[in-house]
Amino acid sequence: MIELRSDTFTLPTPAMLRAMGQARLGDDVYGEDPTVRELEEKAAQLLGKEAGCLMPSGTMANLASIMTHAPRGSKVLVGTESDIYVYEAGGASVCGGVVYEPVVNRPDGTLPLADLRAGFPDDPEDPQFALPSLICLENTQNRCGGVLLSFEYQREVRELADERGIGVHLDGARIFNAAVALGRPPADLAQYADSVQFCLSKGLSAPIGSMVVGSADFVRGVRRVRKMLGGGMRQAGLLAAAGLVALDDYERLAEDHDNALRLAKGLADIDGITVDPDAVQTNIVMFRVTAPGFTWQIFADAAARQGLAIAELGHGRLRAVTHRGVDSADIDAALTVVRRVIAQGAEA
Amino acid sequence: MIELRSDTFTLPTPAMLRAMGQARLGDDVYGEDPTVRELEEKAAQLLGKEAGCLMPSGTMANLASIMTHAPRGSKVLVGTESDIYVYEAGGASVCGGVVYEPVVNRPDGTLPLADLRAGFPDDPEDPQFALPSLICLENTQNRCGGVLLSFEYQREVRELADERGIGVHLDGARIFNAAVALGRPPADLAQYADSVQFCLSKGLSAPIGSMVVGSADFVRGVRRVRKMLGGGMRQAGLLAAAGLVALDDYERLAEDHDNALRLAKGLADIDGITVDPDAVQTNIVMFRVTAPGFTWQIFADAAARQGLAIAELGHGRLRAVTHRGVDSADIDAALTVVRRVIAQGAEA
Amino acid sequence: MIELRSDTFTLPTPAMLRAMGQARLGDDVYGEDPTVRELEEKAAQLLGKEAGCLMPSGTMANLASIMTHAPRGSKVLVGTESDIYVYEAGGASVCGGVVYEPVVNRPDGTLPLADLRAGFPDDPEDPQFALPSLICLENTQNRCGGVLLSFEYQREVRELADERGIGVHLDGARIFNAAVALGRPPADLAQYADSVQFCLSKGLSAPIGSMVVGSADFVRGVRRVRKMLGGGMRQAGLLAAAGLVALDDYERLAEDHDNALRLAKGLADIDGITVDPDAVQTNIVMFRVTAPGFTWQIFADAAARQGLAIAELGHGRLRAVTHRGVDSADIDAALTVVRRVIAQGAEA
Amino acid sequence: MIELRSDTFTLPTPAMLRAMGQARLGDDVYGEDPTVRELEEKAAQLLGKEAGCLMPSGTMANLASIMTHAPRGSKVLVGTESDIYVYEAGGASVCGGVVYEPVVNRPDGTLPLADLRAGFPDDPEDPQFALPSLICLENTQNRCGGVLLSFEYQREVRELADERGIGVHLDGARIFNAAVALGRPPADLAQYADSVQFCLSKGLSAPIGSMVVGSADFVRGVRRVRKMLGGGMRQAGLLAAAGLVALDDYERLAEDHDNALRLAKGLADIDGITVDPDAVQTNIVMFRVTAPGFTWQIFADAAARQGLAIAELGHGRLRAVTHRGVDSADIDAALTVVRRVIAQGAEA
Repeated sequence: MIELRSDTFTLPTPAMLRAMGQARLGDDVYGEDPTVRELEEKAAQLLGKEAGCLMPSGTMANLASIMTHAPRGSKVLVGTESDIYVYEAGGASVCGGVVYEPVVNRPDGTLPLADLRAGFPDDPEDPQFALPSLICLENTQNRCGGVLLSFEYQREVRELADERGIGVHLDGARIFNAAVALGRPPADLAQYADSVQFCLSKGLSAPIGSMVVGSADFVRGVRRVRKMLGGGMRQAGLLAAAGLVALDDYERLAEDHDNALRLAKGLADIDGITVDPDAVQTNIVMFRVTAPGFTWQIFADAAARQGLAIAELGHGRLRAVTHRGVDSADIDAALTVVRRVIAQGAEA
Repeated sequence: MIELRSDTFTLPTPAMLRAMGQARLGDDVYGEDPTVRELEEKAAQLLGKEAGCLMPSGTMANLASIMTHAPRGSKVLVGTESDIYVYEAGGASVCGGVVYEPVVNRPDGTLPLADLRAGFPDDPEDPQFALPSLICLENTQNRCGGVLLSFEYQREVRELADERGIGVHLDGARIFNAAVALGRPPADLAQYADSVQFCLSKGLSAPIGSMVVGSADFVRGVRRVRKMLGGGMRQAGLLAAAGLVALDDYERLAEDHDNALRLAKGLADIDGITVDPDAVQTNIVMFRVTAPGFTWQIFADAAARQGLAIAELGHGRLRAVTHRGVDSADIDAALTVVRRVIAQGAEA
Repeated sequence: MIELRSDTFTLPTPAMLRAMGQARLGDDVYGEDPTVRELEEKAAQLLGKEAGCLMPSGTMANLASIMTHAPRGSKVLVGTESDIYVYEAGGASVCGGVVYEPVVNRPDGTLPLADLRAGFPDDPEDPQFALPSLICLENTQNRCGGVLLSFEYQREVRELADERGIGVHLDGARIFNAAVALGRPPADLAQYADSVQFCLSKGLSAPIGSMVVGSADFVRGVRRVRKMLGGGMRQAGLLAAAGLVALDDYERLAEDHDNALRLAKGLADIDGITVDPDAVQTNIVMFRVTAPGFTWQIFADAAARQGLAIAELGHGRLRAVTHRGVDSADIDAALTVVRRVIAQGAEA
Repeated sequence: MIELRSDTFTLPTPAMLRAMGQARLGDDVYGEDPTVRELEEKAAQLLGKEAGCLMPSGTMANLASIMTHAPRGSKVLVGTESDIYVYEAGGASVCGGVVYEPVVNRPDGTLPLADLRAGFPDDPEDPQFALPSLICLENTQNRCGGVLLSFEYQREVRELADERGIGVHLDGARIFNAAVALGRPPADLAQYADSVQFCLSKGLSAPIGSMVVGSADFVRGVRRVRKMLGGGMRQAGLLAAAGLVALDDYERLAEDHDNALRLAKGLADIDGITVDPDAVQTNIVMFRVTAPGFTWQIFADAAARQGLAIAELGHGRLRAVTHRGVDSADIDAALTVVRRVIAQGAEA
């Protein structure tokens, strides 16, 4: 099976498994796991922040970050297409008493500044209105197709946030993809955010875990929320060991980007597929099956039967995600499957 | 001062004050206030529901209704222009752990059925997605200009809700305006909703209070939430007495509608004001000042100095609301003020 | 019916009804009701605080106060016998994400300082523990029998709170009873608390409403929470007018205290009733029916059939509350009923 | 260092590390990790329930269980000495809008039935009172010294719960210790509970993770909450592989119990230590240092300097926990340290 549904399907590498077998461990709930400490320091340093905190998932990394930034009863401005708003089960409202204010993402992943501004009431003293406390950005932006936010845009959001006295959280689940695509150190991409979460378990291929980084004070707050949510893990150095290996190796994400482009170009040559190769910036390819009779579901089912796993990602689009488990030969094989499925037709 | 900012400024009538002075009272927290009981029964009967419950405000009426319908962690589909979403401080997220999913209102106040449908995930078992538990409609729709929802539309929403097994709550803050405008009994307007809240304190002119009506079971749940929120009031029969007078007299809202139309037509004749008299369906007139140099703020300030109170209501529009405290002579006087303010110009 | 179940059954006086009929009113949600303003200022001044805020109930007054003091995830230290913990439906956990830590009240209504101290973890950095943010006291303490907290005790709690950097909220539902019993201005009783709530609707006899007082900043926060909970009321000057009359007249609570003592002494003379007249400090008498065969329920039912309303208040005790609606002749009549019920026996 | 602070310090065994290196993995957020499936089925079967769910921690296992059982606004009856109430940061109030009602544990770990009954209001319709929805028991009970709940007691709690129509959740963090101590299959110990959580990471020595078991419907609800809290982990089969090894081997907990008894008996022979060896039922020994001049802190610091790690566990008691990382020679060495520390005196 060629797995293009997500980069979350990546398996730990032999080096990771080896590191896990040899890791120095302790009880991280007592703060005594040296490998976790090492990972947290490395993550903070890579992202240019004071401190870091290991989390069991990106969902918890975002949730704990939001709860630390946003007091009960305040609003977080999020994208309508953001993973935080779409895929995280409304946790900030449930656990945090926080109101989501979804702002429509532009195709380039940004939230228009005017719309962010409109989230602030004219009269902040008027108790009818929940007050914004946080803006959440996402880079790369998944549902917009793995697109990159420009530095200029992020700087403008930062200025708006400063002007209003609120925070900026960056859902950087795939921030290392962004760093590699831009050829810039990850810290550059984190510079306009107060806090960043990134996933060890997506393109970086570690089996489990995400990191939150930010100021020491902020991370102290995040740790408190993490414990309450049940994210404190005992010998978490096992996960950290894999995470450390993953971080050493992040430059290889460039291959995934090459493969994504190869896939997009290949798809563009197939009648019945609509895709824009120029829109592919990292490891995600969004496309539609426009051949007569096909729905995304018919297509995905047929592809699966022929060894290609692919999935819908909102608005009827198919999303293909490249990752360490897929090489250029797999891409070519995937293209063959797509061609065959289209050729066989929707009734096949 | 001609008060057109809102119908919430209405003062209790002499008949209401008299009724308050003579009301039979008890401790309603013990369920022993006979006048409250009478009002609750009357409200239920007028709206065609089993039971009713007096609330200190429409905000609490909506909040307690949502909390009774929507379990923690579920979503309520609300209009982006709904009072529930815009003006009620995010209470359902704070107090209920409920996620708002705002759906863009069409100018006619409706939420497109396709957008409501899109609020339901393809796979309800997928725990990434909060699940809808409630649709909230608003009739008349305030921020869309006091417009009326059609019976046909409400029936379709009811069918969608039934198909998905969720509830429908109607924010009928001004449902009596709707009933009068349509010449139909209020119960007809409530028939497609599981629960309705309406305000005694807007056009109906009672000083304080709103009602929730619904099934006996539902209202039992609402009472429980009301107590927890702090909405249980002692000798609430005082408020109920005024409410009973208000309900006897609701047909007079027709005058407010006449005055709103008179105002809109008058405004339409003034250069520098943009208004659509055909859009006026009840007691609300939305307009813009398009005369050179004016912002809504400059206009509202100048009008206030000349005895006309009027306010912005979203997107830079001015809203004028007619009510018992304003007669046709006041409307004419208001038009005179508007004309004069425009004539004097923005620099005045 | 002689009503001794609660002082919440008091009806508005003719002077209150008159004041309501003549009150200058406005829309208090817009902050434009002059009578509400007057009451809020008077309440603040009487209690020696900067600002005040009218609430529909004592429950909301306590809830909004707790939510303003206590961030999400913090603990409030409350008495096991406090009205906040026992009768307010857990609102602070539901609406505020706040954890109640109940501390066992001593019979004199106090929470032992050692137990309050034990609520603070040794290591405040340890995220296993929710951190206290507020201590709630109650004066007079209802379920301990309307007892008075000493100034010395309150000063010690204040010192503990200051030492730990947390707040003190006083549920002063019956603080005017306390002031009258002690012969001290109410402000003296409020001096050790950051915030106080008191009820207009209990012994003070106003029909509806409670006040929160505290610093200007605190009250600003309370107003915000009040709106979110749905406690913003329109022409609330009606309620405020009655409240102003009530406050002018609070010295008359001394009569209720005399009547409570008269009742307790009378009960003490009845075989089959266990009561301690020396424990009666204000307007509440706690007693038990120890005559053979009686439960509190049998007794209360029999008394009700003979025109005396009385109720259980925890742990099988009966509570009698004196108030404006009961004079000394009523007390004597009540004693006659009690004697007769006991004489007729539990099988009657 | 002889580590007696907790059995959470256990390190994964070589067999576990081997199993982790060879585990078949998938993305468990998609439900596609075969090793997780295997563990969940095994856990369910061992505990005699329909289904199981892997969690990153016992805290989340308890929190998600409570949230699944207990609707917003309901009460959970928990022990004052329960880990759920003491060490889990109030999560059910924060994330669930649930009210904790702490009931004082007896020394044998039980919650008196009369006190559980007192948690139910006489009148369930009275909205002043939050209604109980769940009773939480703990077996073995940690802060009572690792004691065992009797089957008879658990049956009585079950009957009470059934009579009132509420659920029973068992915090079985150390339920395998209980099973081994009683010589009964774990399913017998789970039979009176609707849901059970147990930790893979305590005496069972797995590095990370806890399991929730219960009915299929219940576990479906738990999974939904888990995702929202951020407990969904990707290649969680790594953790499950260690968990499977741990479960195969649980009978070895008997050694820990022997060692705990050996320790208690040894401590009982030391002047200046107060301990009751008869109270030791599993792997936990509670004792006090009563030698002159010692506080628990002085003692624990001195012991740590001499190679024995031990910690306070409430009310100034020291807790020693035996586990796989400590053999009988370590126990003897620990006793030597204790003797020496006492001999050297508090001033040393």
